[in-house]
Amino acid sequence: MRLTALALLLATLPVLRADEGMWTFDNIPVKQIKAKYGVDLDAAWLKNLQLATVRFPGGTGAFVSRDGLVVTNHHVGRGAIAQVSSAQADLVKDGFTASRRDQEIKVPGLELMMLVSMKDVTARVNSAVKPGMADQEALAARLNALADLRRTEEAKTGLTCEPVTLYQGGEYWLYRYRKFSDVRLVAAPELQVAAFGGDPDNYTYPRHNLDFSLFRVYEDGKPYRPEAILPFSVKGVAMGELTFISGHPGITYRQQTHAQMVYARDTGIPFQLRTMERQKQALQAFSATSPEAHRLAAEAIYGIENGHKRLSGQLLGLAKQENLKKVEDAEAALRAAVAKDPALQARVGGSWDLMAQAVERQKSLLKEATFIDAGRGTLVGRVATLRHALTLVRLADELAKPSAERLSEFSEGNLKATRSQLLSPRPIQKPIDATLLAAGLQEAQDELSAKHPFVQALLDGQTPEAVAKAAVEGTKLDDPAVRKQLAEGGKAALEASTDPMILLAKTIDPFSRAIHKQVESQVTGVFNEHGGRIAEARFKAFGRAVYPDATFTLRLGYGPVATYANGSGTLAQPFTTFMGMYDRHLGWGGNAAAAEHGAWTLPERWLKRQSKLDLATPFNFIYACDTVGGNSGSPVVNVKGEFVGINFDSVFEGQGGYYVYDPDTKRAVATDARAILEALRKIMGAGKLADELLGR
Amino acid sequence: MRLTALALLLATLPVLRADEGMWTFDNIPVKQIKAKYGVDLDAAWLKNLQLATVRFPGGTGAFVSRDGLVVTNHHVGRGAIAQVSSAQADLVKDGFTASRRDQEIKVPGLELMMLVSMKDVTARVNSAVKPGMADQEALAARLNALADLRRTEEAKTGLTCEPVTLYQGGEYWLYRYRKFSDVRLVAAPELQVAAFGGDPDNYTYPRHNLDFSLFRVYEDGKPYRPEAILPFSVKGVAMGELTFISGHPGITYRQQTHAQMVYARDTGIPFQLRTMERQKQALQAFSATSPEAHRLAAEAIYGIENGHKRLSGQLLGLAKQENLKKVEDAEAALRAAVAKDPALQARVGGSWDLMAQAVERQKSLLKEATFIDAGRGTLVGRVATLRHALTLVRLADELAKPSAERLSEFSEGNLKATRSQLLSPRPIQKPIDATLLAAGLQEAQDELSAKHPFVQALLDGQTPEAVAKAAVEGTKLDDPAVRKQLAEGGKAALEASTDPMILLAKTIDPFSRAIHKQVESQVTGVFNEHGGRIAEARFKAFGRAVYPDATFTLRLGYGPVATYANGSGTLAQPFTTFMGMYDRHLGWGGNAAAAEHGAWTLPERWLKRQSKLDLATPFNFIYACDTVGGNSGSPVVNVKGEFVGINFDSVFEGQGGYYVYDPDTKRAVATDARAILEALRKIMGAGKLADELLGR
Repeated sequence: MRLTALALLLATLPVLRADEGMWTFDNIPVKQIKAKYGVDLDAAWLKNLQLATVRFPGGTGAFVSRDGLVVTNHHVGRGAIAQVSSAQADLVKDGFTASRRDQEIKVPGLELMMLVSMKDVTARVNSAVKPGMADQEALAARLNALADLRRTEEAKTGLTCEPVTLYQGGEYWLYRYRKFSDVRLVAAPELQVAAFGGDPDNYTYPRHNLDFSLFRVYEDGKPYRPEAILPFSVKGVAMGELTFISGHPGITYRQQTHAQMVYARDTGIPFQLRTMERQKQALQAFSATSPEAHRLAAEAIYGIENGHKRLSGQLLGLAKQENLKKVEDAEAALRAAVAKDPALQARVGGSWDLMAQAVERQKSLLKEATFIDAGRGTLVGRVATLRHALTLVRLADELAKPSAERLSEFSEGNLKATRSQLLSPRPIQKPIDATLLAAGLQEAQDELSAKHPFVQALLDGQTPEAVAKAAVEGTKLDDPAVRKQLAEGGKAALEASTDPMILLAKTIDPFSRAIHKQVESQVTGVFNEHGGRIAEARFKAFGRAVYPDATFTLRLGYGPVATYANGSGTLAQPFTTFMGMYDRHLGWGGNAAAAEHGAWTLPERWLKRQSKLDLATPFNFIYACDTVGGNSGSPVVNVKGEFVGINFDSVFEGQGGYYVYDPDTKRAVATDARAILEALRKIMGAGKLADELLGR
Repeated sequence: MRLTALALLLATLPVLRADEGMWTFDNIPVKQIKAKYGVDLDAAWLKNLQLATVRFPGGTGAFVSRDGLVVTNHHVGRGAIAQVSSAQADLVKDGFTASRRDQEIKVPGLELMMLVSMKDVTARVNSAVKPGMADQEALAARLNALADLRRTEEAKTGLTCEPVTLYQGGEYWLYRYRKFSDVRLVAAPELQVAAFGGDPDNYTYPRHNLDFSLFRVYEDGKPYRPEAILPFSVKGVAMGELTFISGHPGITYRQQTHAQMVYARDTGIPFQLRTMERQKQALQAFSATSPEAHRLAAEAIYGIENGHKRLSGQLLGLAKQENLKKVEDAEAALRAAVAKDPALQARVGGSWDLMAQAVERQKSLLKEATFIDAGRGTLVGRVATLRHALTLVRLADELAKPSAERLSEFSEGNLKATRSQLLSPRPIQKPIDATLLAAGLQEAQDELSAKHPFVQALLDGQTPEAVAKAAVEGTKLDDPAVRKQLAEGGKAALEASTDPMILLAKTIDPFSRAIHKQVESQVTGVFNEHGGRIAEARFKAFGRAVYPDATFTLRLGYGPVATYANGSGTLAQPFTTFMGMYDRHLGWGGNAAAAEHGAWTLPERWLKRQSKLDLATPFNFIYACDTVGGNSGSPVVNVKGEFVGINFDSVFEGQGGYYVYDPDTKRAVATDARAILEALRKIMGAGKLADELLGR
């Protein structure tokens, strides 16, 4: 049988490192957990955790009371809290407590999803592939089959069904969700306490963040009675105690080839960091011109700083020799096993070299992709009005084509999101656009050279500042109504438009399409095809003995509360307390100093009621579960399945976990359940809610 | 005049970075300080600070009351506190407060030194050099002249005079000290609070250390009334406020050539780190064998970890490109200026290349120097009984030679210290010696190869473990009395000795002398000679416009209380408070958990009396003064010359400051004066002392 060499590999490779993994609920490594921790996870325990977990837009939450209370992060709920705020009542800034149920505020449009069950449809999807089909044809057949199955299933169950591809195509599933559409805001602390330490503290630890908010799910106008809940633990967790996290990790790159990771380490991430530094410098220069400029630039600067921190952390992980050595060794072993199987060797054997060649192309196309192509992180992507202009320029042309031939953001699947971004009422700050456009054009000129046809076409002999100023000052695209008009006006309206940003986008469009095509055919296309083939080989070797890369679907992680050696040179304390929050507040000079734009200031009632608090209450803690972005708001539970904390971040030093799991640095950060109860009772005037969370 | 090119250089080089420098009190950059901070330091202010500062063995302290109270770090005073402890009263562990003056405990042998005045004798020293003298002869003439001047001066003034060479020979001084020999212990907190966070926290920040102790100087049985004191400030300092530090920075390497720093970065420090890791692993393996082994190994492991942390911090600084770029640029500019002056070019022009060649030799001799030569960090240096054995083996031979021809540790100047180390009653743990000797021999075999004559001579076909076991088990050199006997018995006693460690040392001795000679002639000799010539050129260019490298003599530094971006990814809070100490204590599980060997446990009275403390009292702070080891215990004062804190550490990220000053990371850490007062009053039962410190 052709799998023998691969099966052998499984036996010879080092065992999965302790506590690594984001496991699907149908495939929890209960034996490993039992062997290492002596803990038996039975089906009922797992089912309860699954059904108590809900998906928020961009994050996770959990049912925590019999009357449908749901807890998530403040930063996951923030959009909803802002949505129900008003000019009179800024609930993000001032916090909110509903004293009675009739004060709970419905959040229109907010939908939560509970994963009811999962159905493995791999065999049925694969059976759609007929002998002799080419790869592309086979893929299309699979996706069609999956779409058909989804429709049938939704009709049959009345549930929302989502197709899920795991192991890069090793498995196909339908995940059946129950959707909750009446969700009401119940309580939230002030932003200053929820995000204490602000952006400087993001990705760091020790932390002191009360990063939670409470919502209640209603059905038929009454509080929903959930099938499963996670009652708050009174006792909490202790150092060394085993915890579990249930949530929706968004994306990981752990199956990238060694060549791809070396590219990220030596080329991709360093280049991104450099361009971020240039953007930041430009924004800081603008910020220094007036207090108003300072106010306008603050958010954009923070956004860049946080991206910079996350990428720097990823770089730190990739730069640790043991980490890439592990990837290299695993890859060498898989290649050796593939080489022993002639059929597999014929299909996959050449893929690593082709991937490496594509990486070389990626390297040589990097600058042009960054400055000429559109998308996140590109020059176009950074400037809101230009981004909208290019969407408008392309819209009519793309809609005229069949979905499969369109640029991907205009395909049937993505069109709705693209339209909603285009028409978003989110305010645009023109001076920021002007600053970023000028800086981006200057950088394009420096990096591509002044003689590059793209640079010459855009600048046309003028300075970057002049081009940016003219385009931004003259454009009306900062007004959503104008964008709507142009979108609805079709090709004719667009051709008639004299908006300077539209004209700029028209100049960019052909260059951008050309580069995009090159990147697709020479880089991303190869990554998809041959990355997919390598994944096939890996799935044949390991199957479900390993976990699939993150897909923003429900996963379980496990690991103990544990310290780590943090970047400042000491061991991090496993827990913090309220004392630490006041220590830092005072250490920065208190509210009077409002240091670093007030990152460590505290709301007045937290100062007035300080003496009421038990300052020794555990506040935040770190634990060794394997998480990434998307796990925000995930419940952290103890072996009894009780809620002990809510995940809200992971540490800087462990961001390399997007690529490689490193047990020394992978630490998630949670707000302790005991801090939530103490704050509800002593500060937020919500003793009744605390009782409800404790099932009293 | 030949200095023109060099003088020009001074004008063209970038100005000294803000707040850099360890300035001698005769050459304070008052104009720079005035220009940057608007603060006028007059002669009286400077004289007061100078006379209020005292030198402790290995550190600094300050007069802080009219009745002769002296404050220093707990870790500077620790030896003295241990010395006056007894089996019944462990004052290091339990702390001490003298309620009345007659309870103050005299510390026999403890001497403090106050710098009364400095005399520039450069002209007189240089006049001893006669035309036509060779370099070596000239150096000897200078040192003789300096020694003569010292004797004359001491006879004349009755003060203790120390010759001081600054700017690597650019200036010669006599520093006149008043010596205080009746010093009594007055108060000290418990070690657990003084060094809260223990070794893991060393070199880090945020910190929570009450690192002070109080002594009183007596004369003729009465409290001494100092000429100058630094009264405690009631108000303390605030974020951004300018501070000054007066103390004795020990050693810096800022005048090393670029080639030497590149060697430290790429070869020297990485190799040291690697051998430290091997030693640590060996000790950890031993530590795991029993609780007693664990106890014995703890101190040695911590010692290695701290050395590792300091060196890692230095590496971090050297690895920062801007830092070495600065050194490279300054060197290129100095070389260019030298090249324009024919006479200077003849004397110094070739020195950089010769230094670089010596660095290459240093690189090729590194392993042999580490495993065969004696001294700190070498194989011999790590094993106490072997170190003593080699000293004994060499003693009689060396004393038979004239001082100038001896190995330097046996020269007249160093002999006293060498004898006192040899006869030190400090207990030796044989199992630690056996572990380190076996690991060192194994490492020598791995690094030098099993066929190296040194390795073959030592192992003689046996395993490293067997050789180490036999030597350590059989030796009696762990007994100071045995060492004394052998030392006094001279050549005959040594030749008769059958102590296996003596025999091992006899085997090592010829190898070690041979390598030492090579290193001296090819490496350190060249560094001294040509490093000295480069220093001459630099002094001709800059003279007193820059500060001299640290020499454990009195210096002034200045800089504001300031945050920095610390290694964990956030901005460090400028101050901490007592709340932070309790936060960390609780965060590690309190005394019950005694985590990490109890690094964050607290003495019982600090828990019992917690409610009495104003927890918001500022505890530690960071400030941008330029410090290194030797500054421990240095007073930190405000512009009024009031005592606002006591320096006790500097942060990990800034350890590169031994080589290059980096304004982004150079932060010193102090215990706040307000915390000392609060602890004296509320915990230590010493309200009267607090009043005395405030001049009440």
